[in-house]
Amino acid sequence: MTDKTVRHFQDELEQLKTRLLEMGGLAEDRVSASIGALVKGDAQAVQRVLAGDGPINRLHIEIDKRCFTLLALHQPMAVDLRAIVSAVKINTDLERVGDLAINIAEAVHRYMRHPPVKELIDIPRMATIAQRMLRDALDAYVRRDTALAQAVLDQDDELDALKTQVFRELLTYMLQNTSTIEPALDLILISRHLERIGDHATNVAEDVIFMVLAKDVRHHAGEGVEVTTQTSE
Amino acid sequence: MTDKTVRHFQDELEQLKTRLLEMGGLAEDRVSASIGALVKGDAQAVQRVLAGDGPINRLHIEIDKRCFTLLALHQPMAVDLRAIVSAVKINTDLERVGDLAINIAEAVHRYMRHPPVKELIDIPRMATIAQRMLRDALDAYVRRDTALAQAVLDQDDELDALKTQVFRELLTYMLQNTSTIEPALDLILISRHLERIGDHATNVAEDVIFMVLAKDVRHHAGEGVEVTTQTSE
Repeated sequence: MTDKTVRHFQDELEQLKTRLLEMGGLAEDRVSASIGALVKGDAQAVQRVLAGDGPINRLHIEIDKRCFTLLALHQPMAVDLRAIVSAVKINTDLERVGDLAINIAEAVHRYMRHPPVKELIDIPRMATIAQRMLRDALDAYVRRDTALAQAVLDQDDELDALKTQVFRELLTYMLQNTSTIEPALDLILISRHLERIGDHATNVAEDVIFMVLAKDVRHHAGEGVEVTTQTSE
Repeated sequence: MTDKTVRHFQDELEQLKTRLLEMGGLAEDRVSASIGALVKGDAQAVQRVLAGDGPINRLHIEIDKRCFTLLALHQPMAVDLRAIVSAVKINTDLERVGDLAINIAEAVHRYMRHPPVKELIDIPRMATIAQRMLRDALDAYVRRDTALAQAVLDQDDELDALKTQVFRELLTYMLQNTSTIEPALDLILISRHLERIGDHATNVAEDVIFMVLAKDVRHHAGEGVEVTTQTSE
């Protein structure tokens, strides 16, 4: 590559990162809005989430196109190649987070037809953790920061524990009072959607570690492989 | 590329397809085994699913490596480039299907602690549809068959309708008899896992259409864009 094409390539790669951050911001806002609507019982906010997936879907297609163009025109190698293939995967994860915000809003819409089951504490907390994981994972991608990516992986257990706690507590309500069965079911589904948002953030964090270290850290949880001590290749 | 490297590239691409089919077969078998265990109440079969994700995880990593090697060494263009990037995405989808088989097995494990809620008809039917969608989507990938990919997309509604039916029916059981709440909840979760397997098959089918037609068919559902009438570019 000539200096000029190298510079052009790096500019394009920067733009790709900017777009991924923008998409991450949109996805996070939509999760936040859907949970905010749940907490406040705000039916209009629910409708806004349900109707508002246009921007994220357009970005999804645009980012995919950018990745293909970068791969086809610049034929990148090593860390740049991994950065672009990671962007394809991260783009998919972010789009799913956008879909999950819709799933949450659908459940909130149903939930609001019933009297509230209980004051909500753990579900907003789950949302805060999931959003933070997503934001940190994207920051880790942009900064190629494996320590931050590892911190995202470590937060997933917290989310899992909260999901189990939410499930047990709501099950108790359902068993004691059948009028809570339907709304409690929706809260259980919402907690599962939030858990999946954490899973997507985990995927992004794993992609970041692979991109930087050229080291696959997936599927090693039970095999005693330490990630944090790996050095860059 | 010389004739020899072209031939080598095509051989490698064929091997990639073979591995994806193999992974799809494993994923399908694990879904089938988890639902079979549910229908027969076979605790040992549940344990086999829970313990048996090693092969699929190893293939997941191997296929990803093959994709990177193909991109880095051969710098493919056009449909070949799209085929390899699609393989990266499909690989991710298949790995998630493997994870969902584990989620199903976990729910079956809990379900079997209680007396059966009802004779299961719709859930095994959902499993059959989801597995067929997955198989067809992979066949469509290997054969670059957009008509078959479109047929996969069309089956997703059937799965959605069954999920809604399962939910309504189980809700009735829960409301009538609180002793069914816990096991019915697990059946609802299982039906959601099967729906998600159908979603992954849908993703694969969309990737196939993109690969062949260089045409993005995602996010157009509400915009009246017809997929089947597109011609290859």
